[in-house]
Amino acid sequence: MEPIGIIHTPYRTKPDCPIQPAYAGTAAARVEVFAQYVDGLKDVETFSHLHLLYLFDRAAAIELVRHTFLDDTPHGIYASRHPCRPNGIGMSIVRLVRREDNVLVIEGADMLDGTPLLDIKPYMPKFDIIRDAGEGWTANVAWREKPAGRE
Amino acid sequence: MEPIGIIHTPYRTKPDCPIQPAYAGTAAARVEVFAQYVDGLKDVETFSHLHLLYLFDRAAAIELVRHTFLDDTPHGIYASRHPCRPNGIGMSIVRLVRREDNVLVIEGADMLDGTPLLDIKPYMPKFDIIRDAGEGWTANVAWREKPAGRE
Repeated sequence: MEPIGIIHTPYRTKPDCPIQPAYAGTAAARVEVFAQYVDGLKDVETFSHLHLLYLFDRAAAIELVRHTFLDDTPHGIYASRHPCRPNGIGMSIVRLVRREDNVLVIEGADMLDGTPLLDIKPYMPKFDIIRDAGEGWTANVAWREKPAGRE
Repeated sequence: MEPIGIIHTPYRTKPDCPIQPAYAGTAAARVEVFAQYVDGLKDVETFSHLHLLYLFDRAAAIELVRHTFLDDTPHGIYASRHPCRPNGIGMSIVRLVRREDNVLVIEGADMLDGTPLLDIKPYMPKFDIIRDAGEGWTANVAWREKPAGRE
C-alpha cells in the first residue's frame, strides 16, 4: 500500500489529538490528495461527510489487550479504536467543508499532522447509519476527555 | 500489512456478492481470526455491529473514474465504494450474531468467500451515526439491485 495523500491537521503531538472526530470540534484541516489520484475525487464534493482511512504511522507498539482513552479497563484491541493495533489503519468520519482542486477542507480531523492517507470513502447514510446498534462496553463508562498526556 | 484472519461467506463469485451489507440480508458468514490475534477479541462480543476492514484481493484493475453498481454514470472512485480502487481496502458494517472463540458469526457480509481480514473496529453509535449526513450524488439515483453479471 502506498499513501494517496497527506492529512494536514493542527495536531502536532499525540496529547494534542482528539480521541475521535466527535471530540474534535470545528478546527479546519486539509486533506491533500496527490496529483496522480485527483481524478478519483470527481463528485466527492457532493457528499457532506467522508470516511478517511489512514496509517497510524506514529503509533506505539501493538498491544492486543490494553486500556483505552475512554476508561482504564483493559479491552481487546478489536473492541476499541485505539491506534496500537496490527495493520495500523485509522478510520475517521469527517465533515467535508469544500473541495479546492486536490485539497479537501474538512472539519472533525482527529489525526496527527502529516498522517499518510490511504483511502477516502463517502459516508452514505443508507449504508452507514445503523439505528439499532448497541454501544457495547462503552455503554457503561462515563465519557471523558482524554487524560492529559495519555497516548 | 498481513491478514489477521479470513472471512468465510456464501459468495464464491463476484456476481453473487451483494453490493453492500444493506443488500445482504441475513445469510450467516464467519470471520475466522488467526490464533495469534485472538486475545485482541476480548469484549468484542459486547458490540452488536462491527466494521470489518479487508482486502479486495480479487478486484479488477484500478479505475479512478468509473460507473458503479448503483448507476451507469462515471463517478470518481473516492465518491464511491467500488472495489477497483488504489489501496484496495474494503469496509463493511456487519451484525455480530455471536462469538465462538476465534470465530465471529456475522450477518450482512458482502464480500467474497476467503477474503483476507485486515482489521475489526467496533461500530460505536456516538462516533458513527451522523444524523445530518447527506447522500451526495446517490440522492438522485433510483436504488437498484446489482445488474446481472456486473462486477
